[in-house]
Amino acid sequence: VVASRPGMDLVLTKDAIVEGVHFLPGTPPGQIARKLLRVNLSDLAAKAAEPYAYLLAAAWPAAYGWPERQAFAEGLRQDGEAFDLVLLGGDTTSTPGALTLSLTLLGWVPAGRMVRRAGARPGDLLMVSGTIGDGALGLAAARGELADPDGFLADRYVSPQPRLDLRTALRAGAHAACDVSDGLVADAGHIARASGVGLVLRLDGLPLSPPAARWLDGQPDRATGLLRLATGGDDYEVVCAAPAPLAGFTVIGEVTAGQGTQVLAGGRTLEPGPGGWRHG
Amino acid sequence: VVASRPGMDLVLTKDAIVEGVHFLPGTPPGQIARKLLRVNLSDLAAKAAEPYAYLLAAAWPAAYGWPERQAFAEGLRQDGEAFDLVLLGGDTTSTPGALTLSLTLLGWVPAGRMVRRAGARPGDLLMVSGTIGDGALGLAAARGELADPDGFLADRYVSPQPRLDLRTALRAGAHAACDVSDGLVADAGHIARASGVGLVLRLDGLPLSPPAARWLDGQPDRATGLLRLATGGDDYEVVCAAPAPLAGFTVIGEVTAGQGTQVLAGGRTLEPGPGGWRHG
Repeated sequence: VVASRPGMDLVLTKDAIVEGVHFLPGTPPGQIARKLLRVNLSDLAAKAAEPYAYLLAAAWPAAYGWPERQAFAEGLRQDGEAFDLVLLGGDTTSTPGALTLSLTLLGWVPAGRMVRRAGARPGDLLMVSGTIGDGALGLAAARGELADPDGFLADRYVSPQPRLDLRTALRAGAHAACDVSDGLVADAGHIARASGVGLVLRLDGLPLSPPAARWLDGQPDRATGLLRLATGGDDYEVVCAAPAPLAGFTVIGEVTAGQGTQVLAGGRTLEPGPGGWRHG
Repeated sequence: VVASRPGMDLVLTKDAIVEGVHFLPGTPPGQIARKLLRVNLSDLAAKAAEPYAYLLAAAWPAAYGWPERQAFAEGLRQDGEAFDLVLLGGDTTSTPGALTLSLTLLGWVPAGRMVRRAGARPGDLLMVSGTIGDGALGLAAARGELADPDGFLADRYVSPQPRLDLRTALRAGAHAACDVSDGLVADAGHIARASGVGLVLRLDGLPLSPPAARWLDGQPDRATGLLRLATGGDDYEVVCAAPAPLAGFTVIGEVTAGQGTQVLAGGRTLEPGPGGWRHG
């Protein structure tokens, strides 16, 4: 039970993750718990909400015994404490199939101040927080497909840091926002579709971490490399549209009166693959 | 996003159901949707809350194509409309395993007036709404193990009617309540444990539907038959403890200062099976 807070709106997000779809079989349970929580926190962060509490539904296959379930609960408890979250309850059941976890996360925003996907206007700047592409490279590193000497990239993939610190900037200035989970181009596209606007996205201005910049330098074609970083997903940064630059964000394009997303790199327009702009 | 309602508390319930655990493979998708919604509505009914909205997370196996998913969505839409519920959103994903559905249901109660499992006091009457045992017999009927000429029993199992009509009575007089999903004896036991009290439950006073009464008359041992009805589950009625009789409820026992549940029938004390009081 949640008491109403006059002057505040409650924001709810709900996400399900499934073994073999969202995480690899064999992933340590504590790591699964932390990622589940953080992926949902990232969604709240993009909405400029303050995290409050969560409910969990878990369907456990018989292959997960008590030690694994305890490790999961401990990961959840640790991160719940770190992010100051109340566990309100939930449901646990068995399943003959894959481990399936569904989280409902609750947050508060001042009444009417939630930042939505809809609301971007022609002339707005398109901006993204932090650095982009580390999630996709981190997945490759975690799979052993990419050198990652200090573990920076794998850590960005395994333990995303939800950008809850951007709340004030988003509330103050953003017309629309979305967290970067599917890939920057796809998630910017979510804003465009919800807002009924077009986008120009300039990948040459993509903010990159030093390891991502080094990886890009080693690519045969810079534009193709940039596109991989911008479509790879799992960054858990925030992309937003606002009439003026916001603290913590890098300008990467602009909102237009048209529709669709025009993606530019190295002076040319890139085309989406057959599956659209989502690669990850 | 949910605007706060001053003077009201938000009540949340979350339940997950899994194919092969909570419903049989081959169950019509529209029927699964309705049962999922109604099982959660029953939980809200026992808390004396007014249903408001829901979020759904669905993990679909590839064997479910668009027609099945559409039938599910249509069942959800119909019942959502019938119960005046807002669909707030959710998440859809694929799964290599069993169909898994997780529902988060939201309801409102006047501030501080939610009826909990804890709160029963020695001397309270133990009461149950409607009739008990139809769910268990209905499952047997749906499996073809029991004659059910007019389909009454199967319908009670397939389409439970959440007892939202008991809200006023529960708020006015109940110290504690729980919906009857695991079986009357088990769910009454949930109240006893949460409240730190004991129970005496008199099965001879169990309210029975005419088909359940006919079934009982045909049983070789009446006490064993009553126990099956009281432990079968899936009734989606409400069991509560209150200091005086409440409209819509039948008195079936009382709350004591001890602990544990004493189950009486035909003048003798019945013993739980090796799995405790839950048979269903």
